[in-house]
Amino acid sequence: MDQFSAALPEGLGIRKIHHVAVIVRDMEASLGLYRDKMGLDVDAVMDMSYDHVIIGFLPVGEVKIELVQPTDNATGSARFLESKGEGFHHICFEVPDIQAALDKLAAMGLTLIDAIPRKGGEGPVAFIHPKSCHGVLVELIEAPGGPAWAKLEY
Amino acid sequence: MDQFSAALPEGLGIRKIHHVAVIVRDMEASLGLYRDKMGLDVDAVMDMSYDHVIIGFLPVGEVKIELVQPTDNATGSARFLESKGEGFHHICFEVPDIQAALDKLAAMGLTLIDAIPRKGGEGPVAFIHPKSCHGVLVELIEAPGGPAWAKLEY
Repeated sequence: MDQFSAALPEGLGIRKIHHVAVIVRDMEASLGLYRDKMGLDVDAVMDMSYDHVIIGFLPVGEVKIELVQPTDNATGSARFLESKGEGFHHICFEVPDIQAALDKLAAMGLTLIDAIPRKGGEGPVAFIHPKSCHGVLVELIEAPGGPAWAKLEY
Repeated sequence: MDQFSAALPEGLGIRKIHHVAVIVRDMEASLGLYRDKMGLDVDAVMDMSYDHVIIGFLPVGEVKIELVQPTDNATGSARFLESKGEGFHHICFEVPDIQAALDKLAAMGLTLIDAIPRKGGEGPVAFIHPKSCHGVLVELIEAPGGPAWAKLEY
């Protein structure tokens, strides 16, 4: 299918999906599905009080399922839960150089939520607006050792 | 976090996410994002006329992004597009024995859309109802060589 195989010379250098995030109403209830019934491992469950969420990380091969339970009404994920209910929230792709990726996407006309990366729990992260991504909220995270790690003082 | 690490002895044997499916309105427009701007490879784009969809497969590490464009109003994915718009549709986990997995889930009280696997394009598949999965539509696919492959005459 030659008409579908053309790509820009470099793209963003994405080589894996880092995680898929799901909004849940209650962490323990959702672990009752993913951990107890489906048998997935749980890396960690963390109360990120400054982010107003509890997050659970469940590794599945090279990807993680990230369960996100809003703990109050202050956040976008809480508004998501109230308006849309439980379900898929975002997908995160790993890139080698997050600022270079953001600059490329901005130059191509995409609307960025974060024009420069911010310090996430597992590396520098930035979100791209779903209106530029056919309804999908896309997050980028920089692979360990990339240039934004030093800048953000990990 | 010991209280989160208990799991049933075996679970379903999930070792990887097979794909994440996204509903799109127009395949070429969405390839303009994922292929041309993000630089992902495209394995194949197939017109599955008997399923009333065009599907694009984009490998990212060990997972695929599956773009699904409904081609008429006959299907659940078309109704999804009309009611919810473009966005995440389902996640597919690979299991070694799909019938055993379905039987376990049914015994644990989950509502299955497919109580027995049916023949998918890449192996035996079955869906679990999102009302049993905290709002997430979950698909299972059997890994190549599993017992359902012979039964379904691949």
